[in-house]
Amino acid sequence: AVRGLLLDVSGVLYDSGGDGGVPIAGSVEAVRRIKASGLKLRFCTNETQATREKFVKKLQGMGFDISVAEVTAPAPAACRILKERSLRPHLLVHNDLVPEFAEIDKANPNCVVIGDAAENFTYANLNEAFRVLIGMEKPVLISLGRGRYYKETDGLKLDVGAYMKALEYACDVQAEVVGKPAKMFFESALAEMGVPPQQAIMIGDDIVNDVGGAQRCGMRALQVRTGKYRPCDENHPDVKPDAYVNNLAEAVDIILQQL
Amino acid sequence: AVRGLLLDVSGVLYDSGGDGGVPIAGSVEAVRRIKASGLKLRFCTNETQATREKFVKKLQGMGFDISVAEVTAPAPAACRILKERSLRPHLLVHNDLVPEFAEIDKANPNCVVIGDAAENFTYANLNEAFRVLIGMEKPVLISLGRGRYYKETDGLKLDVGAYMKALEYACDVQAEVVGKPAKMFFESALAEMGVPPQQAIMIGDDIVNDVGGAQRCGMRALQVRTGKYRPCDENHPDVKPDAYVNNLAEAVDIILQQL
Repeated sequence: AVRGLLLDVSGVLYDSGGDGGVPIAGSVEAVRRIKASGLKLRFCTNETQATREKFVKKLQGMGFDISVAEVTAPAPAACRILKERSLRPHLLVHNDLVPEFAEIDKANPNCVVIGDAAENFTYANLNEAFRVLIGMEKPVLISLGRGRYYKETDGLKLDVGAYMKALEYACDVQAEVVGKPAKMFFESALAEMGVPPQQAIMIGDDIVNDVGGAQRCGMRALQVRTGKYRPCDENHPDVKPDAYVNNLAEAVDIILQQL
Repeated sequence: AVRGLLLDVSGVLYDSGGDGGVPIAGSVEAVRRIKASGLKLRFCTNETQATREKFVKKLQGMGFDISVAEVTAPAPAACRILKERSLRPHLLVHNDLVPEFAEIDKANPNCVVIGDAAENFTYANLNEAFRVLIGMEKPVLISLGRGRYYKETDGLKLDVGAYMKALEYACDVQAEVVGKPAKMFFESALAEMGVPPQQAIMIGDDIVNDVGGAQRCGMRALQVRTGKYRPCDENHPDVKPDAYVNNLAEAVDIILQQL
């Protein structure tokens, strides 16, 4: 029995881009149908280019029925960790994400938090984050996701995971990943829905971070053939989705038929 | 018996910087003493921010007795590989290195060559190199070195290895490394001197790329406490130099005494 759905957002609901993005055909209606069905729903995103408020406003502008309270995102999860462990971050993140860390003490940093900083991934900023890390006796690097790349309307872009690897290698440390595919991140999304993993389905375009991560938590997971999906994903050596679907609309068709 | 010396350059002969760099005390005289001793000498560098001509001119300007023919550097080694395998590179390198690839066909690229591009490591350029790689059926990434970081007069900088790791991770490939610590690179420097590894000593500031790399070729290797040297290098889990010396001058004192 299915009682709840976790939806990835970029590449499933819409294709992002400098212009703000374009909804994927059928996705606005698909979200509406999920809500009408009585299934629990949670948007589970690694989006770190904007505060949840801005992100939700952008999606609402495209016609999606979504609210801030329905979104599980890495920055708030990172803030909980920073507070618990008295960590003061040096931030290498997108300008628009900075407000999420407004209440966090950032003086005299004792860790680095890296997100998808996009245009902020400059040579100077990467060197600066590196110097903060290498200056610590035991470097602490917290990464908001570990995605390899994503698709925008003007092409594929390197994601935070690539830059995380650069800093990991330079400082000989292993980053702590907040966001998909971290188990704790999926578990908090499930807890917020109040649905056990066996009764939840993840729908995403990322074979490793969405599908693999959700399955390791005991969920089923579908991969959509939109967003960053590439045909060679279907030969992935480690991860096999429970099913492939052409897009979110088709996934919702199948799931609602089986209720 | 010692018959030849391989010297790393940056961090051993001089500290590099935006201003061109500053000789390390005693190093100019130390190079002169090596040459006067009759020992064979080769400068073995992973420098990829300039052509060998420019690099040598800079060192001569600081007072070093050095010529282009005495330098083993990654770019010429990479050119040999590109020609042998009919590879046409997309270059992500420093502007000043581009002339080394003047005779190489770069149209319709079927590989990416990455060097220490410094200011050319922009978000846009990294995305472009990534797109070239991910668009290949079997991505070929050639990296001019795999250094983690180096020291300039204004601080530590991420080296090519960090950016190599970012692209490796994003494209799920393993780079082919040209330059230290690749065995073939040390072997070509030894061949150019005409000295077997048992009779050669490497002197460098990089515990992994200089010391570890040379030792794996059967050479002895000294680590200088200049350049990127850090005290924690002396607790390295895998690599133990044959000796530590405070600087090149002290290394030459010890070696010449034992001749």
